[in-house]
Amino acid sequence: MSLPRIAVDAMGGDEGVRVMIAGAAEARRRHDKFKFLLVGDEARITAALESHPNLRAASEILHCSDVVGGDEVPSRALRRAKTTSMGLAVNAVKEGKAGAAVSAGNTGALMAMSKLALRTMPGIDRPALAAIMPTLGDNDVMMLDLGANTEADARNLVQFAIMGAAYSRILTGKDKPRVRLLNIGTEENKGFDRLRDAAAQLQAVTGLDLQFDGYVESDKINRGEVDVVVTDGFSGNIALKAIEGTARFVTDLLRRAFTSSIRSKVGFLVSRPATELLRHHLDPNNHNGAVFLGLNGVVVKSHGSATAGGVANAVAVAARLLEENLTHRISAGLAELRAREADVGTTDEEAEAAK
Amino acid sequence: MSLPRIAVDAMGGDEGVRVMIAGAAEARRRHDKFKFLLVGDEARITAALESHPNLRAASEILHCSDVVGGDEVPSRALRRAKTTSMGLAVNAVKEGKAGAAVSAGNTGALMAMSKLALRTMPGIDRPALAAIMPTLGDNDVMMLDLGANTEADARNLVQFAIMGAAYSRILTGKDKPRVRLLNIGTEENKGFDRLRDAAAQLQAVTGLDLQFDGYVESDKINRGEVDVVVTDGFSGNIALKAIEGTARFVTDLLRRAFTSSIRSKVGFLVSRPATELLRHHLDPNNHNGAVFLGLNGVVVKSHGSATAGGVANAVAVAARLLEENLTHRISAGLAELRAREADVGTTDEEAEAAK
Repeated sequence: MSLPRIAVDAMGGDEGVRVMIAGAAEARRRHDKFKFLLVGDEARITAALESHPNLRAASEILHCSDVVGGDEVPSRALRRAKTTSMGLAVNAVKEGKAGAAVSAGNTGALMAMSKLALRTMPGIDRPALAAIMPTLGDNDVMMLDLGANTEADARNLVQFAIMGAAYSRILTGKDKPRVRLLNIGTEENKGFDRLRDAAAQLQAVTGLDLQFDGYVESDKINRGEVDVVVTDGFSGNIALKAIEGTARFVTDLLRRAFTSSIRSKVGFLVSRPATELLRHHLDPNNHNGAVFLGLNGVVVKSHGSATAGGVANAVAVAARLLEENLTHRISAGLAELRAREADVGTTDEEAEAAK
Repeated sequence: MSLPRIAVDAMGGDEGVRVMIAGAAEARRRHDKFKFLLVGDEARITAALESHPNLRAASEILHCSDVVGGDEVPSRALRRAKTTSMGLAVNAVKEGKAGAAVSAGNTGALMAMSKLALRTMPGIDRPALAAIMPTLGDNDVMMLDLGANTEADARNLVQFAIMGAAYSRILTGKDKPRVRLLNIGTEENKGFDRLRDAAAQLQAVTGLDLQFDGYVESDKINRGEVDVVVTDGFSGNIALKAIEGTARFVTDLLRRAFTSSIRSKVGFLVSRPATELLRHHLDPNNHNGAVFLGLNGVVVKSHGSATAGGVANAVAVAARLLEENLTHRISAGLAELRAREADVGTTDEEAEAAK
């Protein structure tokens, strides 16, 4: 089977064309079987491609001059879906001209366009936005939903768990990624009914390709003890931004501390390899590429401020999810869930009948 | 007016009596007009007081040998309110034998006992748990609710804003602390109806002793641009623990980085004053003492793992809130809110009549 193309919104993000093209070129070097559809201003894309003959040879350009603004409200962006680089990149997936779209533009607009154009997969009620974060363990951790929906009921949360586990199996290579629901305590009576219902369902249905370990509190997300953290879009967004903001806050404090005296400056220079290691570990470019799960097609959001290396990571996420057929894996997980739920149902009836 | 006593649950927390008594003694040195009611095992308290004659002279001991367990479910703890050190400390406030209670025990149990024994103040529907965090600015930031209630409607959120501002005026000395609602974006259409309704109310009612600045996202809590962050208990708990966990995560990474090579170790030693500064800034002992706001009496929760210095800070929070009459300030704020709401109402009616 030949691999589907990757559509790249070449205009989104803080730096636009140059960084997006350089990133796509680097990703293409890592995944050299892919072809690309580069969406945006043709003259600027052509100019940027001069430094990247390798990518040029594997790309088609889809011209448009219109771009979604960073602060543009989703409703306005939706009306301009047929003329903007973001809209056309997503539309290419809808029309089967690409298997995945990557954009560094406005998250709300990308979310709205993707939902409307691609629709949710059969068996999925709502899509979810998933991102990867570093941990103190050997594997990264994935969290979803991060804001595709403000709310989520028990049924949505169970579907998020299935989707997250499918993605995590690709990322980590684990047969049964460890899944937990985000809550404000680990006792059974904590949180909302919807959390308790989702936990009960995930506990009852055995044999899924995931290991459900109950709840996780937000101070333990990054300890390396969980692979997939499942939550609603509001709580997920709060947790993700709190983690990102605090990582920046502590490194800012550190920078101040290290520049507060000559002695500290000297210490900083001597220990530079150590602080570089820290910087590398926390650099969001190394975990770039949030994914909308549950749509008919792969959509990857790159950070607006990502470097070319960061964009390459986001494009590589799209490549990997296409190579490993994420959508098929999610479908299989949902079918398994339905079959196992039916089993649980039978067992209950039998138990009832045996009374 | 003589100051009310402070009841200290001497048994709660990881280390129990020794740390709690040492902490109370240090707080007493800073606030030397206060008297104390020390609740717990008399023999052990008496032994611990031998090192602190100053505190002994200002204290009465209320003996009990029973203690609430760290993992004890609140419902069980509630049934043992008359026999445990935590229950008796809270009860002393209820009976007017103390103005404030401080405990390092189980948060859920303390919350349940405090709500049941002390009840909410007139005009407050639900209490809220408020805590202080460091920022990059000159002032600390306070966030509430951190878990006294899982959910909060618009009316609760407005009351939290009033209570948080009253506490913040004491802490920061500002006439009008800057208040924001925690949300997943700063655009008006973000989040839940209850957030938009609370924002509309706080915007409409002018003349309160606070400055309402709209929404704040969780990555900007610690930038020093807001004094009081208002949210529901679920989101607040998620945000607080994500911040605490990430601060620990980054400092753990830092420690690993600094011990990864001889050169790094040398650098670490040279730059020690800088890393000490960082450690000091992030040490939770320096911001110890979460407060239950909105009850008929002050209840302060000390971290279970706090040092004597940390406990002293928590006891000092109680002392300061009694000295500055927090409860009276909250009542005044609520009266002001009602008066201003009436104004807004009158204006609306006048506008209606003028049509």
